[in-house]
Formats: sequence, C-alpha cells, structure tokens
Amino acid sequence: MGVVVVTGVPGVGKSTVMAGASEAGYGIVNFGDVMFEIAQAEGVPNRDQMRRLPVADQQRLQRLAGEKIAAIGNVVVDTHTSILTSRGYLPGLPEWTLRAMAPAIIVLVEATPTEITSRRAKDATRQRDADDVALHQEVNRAFAATGAVMIGATVAIIENHDGEVDDAVAQFRSLLA
Amino acid sequence: MGVVVVTGVPGVGKSTVMAGASEAGYGIVNFGDVMFEIAQAEGVPNRDQMRRLPVADQQRLQRLAGEKIAAIGNVVVDTHTSILTSRGYLPGLPEWTLRAMAPAIIVLVEATPTEITSRRAKDATRQRDADDVALHQEVNRAFAATGAVMIGATVAIIENHDGEVDDAVAQFRSLLA
Amino acid sequence: MGVVVVTGVPGVGKSTVMAGASEAGYGIVNFGDVMFEIAQAEGVPNRDQMRRLPVADQQRLQRLAGEKIAAIGNVVVDTHTSILTSRGYLPGLPEWTLRAMAPAIIVLVEATPTEITSRRAKDATRQRDADDVALHQEVNRAFAATGAVMIGATVAIIENHDGEVDDAVAQFRSLLA
Repeated sequence: MGVVVVTGVPGVGKSTVMAGASEAGYGIVNFGDVMFEIAQAEGVPNRDQMRRLPVADQQRLQRLAGEKIAAIGNVVVDTHTSILTSRGYLPGLPEWTLRAMAPAIIVLVEATPTEITSRRAKDATRQRDADDVALHQEVNRAFAATGAVMIGATVAIIENHDGEVDDAVAQFRSLLA
Repeated sequence: MGVVVVTGVPGVGKSTVMAGASEAGYGIVNFGDVMFEIAQAEGVPNRDQMRRLPVADQQRLQRLAGEKIAAIGNVVVDTHTSILTSRGYLPGLPEWTLRAMAPAIIVLVEATPTEITSRRAKDATRQRDADDVALHQEVNRAFAATGAVMIGATVAIIENHDGEVDDAVAQFRSLLA
Repeated sequence: MGVVVVTGVPGVGKSTVMAGASEAGYGIVNFGDVMFEIAQAEGVPNRDQMRRLPVADQQRLQRLAGEKIAAIGNVVVDTHTSILTSRGYLPGLPEWTLRAMAPAIIVLVEATPTEITSRRAKDATRQRDADDVALHQEVNRAFAATGAVMIGATVAIIENHDGEVDDAVAQFRSLLA
C-alpha cells in the first residue's frame, strides 16, 4: 500500500486510533520528527531553530522528509492537515510535501467538537487550545480534499466517538488491510 | 464552450438532468467508457482487468481518455467527482485527468440525502449503497472546488429535487447556452 | 510579510475591514485595477474589451498582474475568491494567479447570510445580487483552501458582524502585525 497519513485536531485521539498500525505490519513515524532528524544532520541544533529557518529552507526540509518517508514503504505518518497559527490555518500537507510523500490514503480522525473540547479539558499536560474545533475540522477536510485531487489519494474519515474507540481502531485497521 | 463535466452521487438523477444536452448540440460520453475503449485497443480484455492494472497504467489511461474527450469539442461528460471505496473517497477527477480534459464547467447534480436514499430504494436493479450521502456530496463539492482552481473551470450546482426535474433540466440547458 | 489577499462576497464589508491596512504600513491594491492597467498599456481600451479577450490572454494578464503585485512587497490585495457567473462559480484566484502573486495569507471576510443580505438591501447603488450567500461563502472557503495547499499560504477567516466592526478591523490588523 505505501504511505498512510493520519491527521486530526489536537485532542481527537489520533494516537489511540493509530495504535492498531503495528499489528497490520505498519511502522508509525511522526512527520515533524523525520523533518527534524534531517535538519539536525545539517547542523540545526533544535526545533525552535528549525522553525526560524527561511521559508525556502523549511520547504526543502519538508520535501526531504516526505521523500524519506516515501522510501520506507508501508508506514503510517502522524501529522497535521492544518495548524492554527496567529495568521490563520497553515497547511500541514502543502503541495510539495504531498507530492514527495505520495500517500495512498489521507485519514482524518474526527469527533464532535463537544467530545474534543472535553478530552482537551481532561488532559492536564495539554496547553488549552482556544481553537474553534468545528471550523478547524472543516478546514482540515478542505485541505485534505485538495491534497487528494493533486495526487489521487483517497480521503478516509474515521469517527472516534466516546465509548467507541474499538470501532475507530477497527476502522483504521480495515483501511490498512 | 468545450467540455462540461457532470457529476453526482448514485441515485441523484444525473442521467435525467443530462438528457437535455443533445437539444443544445452536445453529445454525451461516459468517462469510464472512453477509458475502456482505449484500454481495449491496447489489448485489455475487460473492465475488471483494467481496474487491476498498475496505478501508473490506470493514470495513463485516464490522461489519454481526458485528451480524447477534450478533442471532441462541445461534449458533456458523465463521470464522478469521487468514488467511495474501502479505503475512502477516491478522486474521480484527479489532477492529471482534469488537466487533460480541461472542462469549462464542473457540474454537481445534488438533491437532499432523503431524496437520494428514497430514489435508491426504488431502483431494484441498484445494489444498495451503504454510503453516507450527505458526506459524499460534501466531499464532491470539495474535490470539484480543487479541480476548478487548478484549471479555472466554473463549478455549477444543479438541485434536482423531487417533482422539479423540469427545472433541473432547464438549469442544465442554460449552462450550455 | 509580503502579499495579503482579502476576499469576501459582495456586501460583507470587505473595504471597511481593509481600512486598517495603511496604519500597519500596507498599501491596498485592487487586483482588477492592476490587471486593467497592464491591459491598457497593451492597447486594450476598456474593461469590457478586456473581459472579451480570448481566455489565454486573460490568463496571461492575470499572471502578469500577480507578478506585479508580488513585486510590491507588503501589500493588501482586494479581490474575490470566486465570482458567481451564469455558468457557476468562477475561481477569482486560479492556480496561475496564486502562484504568480504568492500571498502569505488568504483572508476570507465573512458575516451571516442575513447580515449580508440586509447590508446589500441598504446599499442603493448596488445592483441586487440574487446570490445564494451561504453557498457562495462555502465555495469561497473551498477555493481558498485549495489555493493555500498549492502555495503554503495560511487561510484566515475574519467575522465582520453587525455592531462589531472594530473587532473585525482589529483582527485584520493583528494578521498584518
């Protein structure tokens, strides 16, 4: 199958859903980790420095990370469709990253805004997100749709509702089958 | 005008709406038929075999079908914006197909999910679709929007509601005028 | 920062929101004006003639206008994400324009359909739009999302609600900060 990208807003329970990947013979990599490994090998000391690189350098690192991931073969990639910044929603899977990584499936893990807000509140380690959850999920769908048309990937939505996590994991595993 | 693509989820009544095309001087072709004709000329014996070709070959056939359709001139193309598969929503109009076919208009024929479900139930020949109709129509809008921005096509939505089919056909004909 | 594109349906109050740009050190240009200046220099006498040019010429003018704007540096661009035509929603920011202009932010100024309809009714100079406002805003979001993924721009939504214009202007200024 190749690369399967898994995305979702903070608090949606993405990691829980992805946990089924290894049984299906898939490793899991974090996109940001792969990107930072490449930056480190080029002498960038930490992630803060990486974020301050000129835009062209960051785009080059995103492309290289995408190519490195594509070379793995069967792999699940933990990343974001969009990131809410002070300047609006930034694509986490811009065109150059998508074309380099060439995922077969872009997975959106979703839940209701109420469920997500409640999960965030329970997570004491998480900085509170002032995010409009419904809008963020809508933007993610639109960004994912664009990526799918560019590269011919499928878009799969997995509903991760309260008390139905087994069902969400099963849905995810059936995508990898 | 050139190529006008008409799409819609199964059961929405796409064929009925398209029936007005010939009076406006447009032929109607089915994208999948054109693609299979090209595959047949290359020795592929049937559609099942075509679907089992390597992805790169299928993409090449899609591109060739798009080019063949673009060469016709004024033509209405019966196809899908997305197809629901076991791996999620697959773009029926991926970038390479769109660029080859270069439609002037991408038409989305829509109805309410209730209307569509009811029409499907009445069609005894149709395999029951377990499809989430509202989501499928939402995905189609997003995929069509992406295609439009890529090639500068317009996106037109035609509402094909119960008891208003004449209005839907008239809307479609006015697009071709 | 560079180019910041501001869009919104007719009547949403785009100009009011943009008024804060000059205090932040940004000029404001209208995309259509820049395009017409270039056309005039090529001998096109008026905007009607420009709209009747072959599609390839119009696309070339859009690209040139985009490049001219990108060369300005910090600038706010008044334009449309989509234009409602007799053939459906036409992308106001098609791929070639976006790539030439390379905006850092695509801003969508929005309000509720009721607010927008009421503002249009109060504006005696405006031709009445028979537009489905909710759908038009939905299409704008989808078109903006596509553009963002293509070039890595952020998408920012500014709500310009009745009685809260100061808040909308402040939101816009914070984007430029």
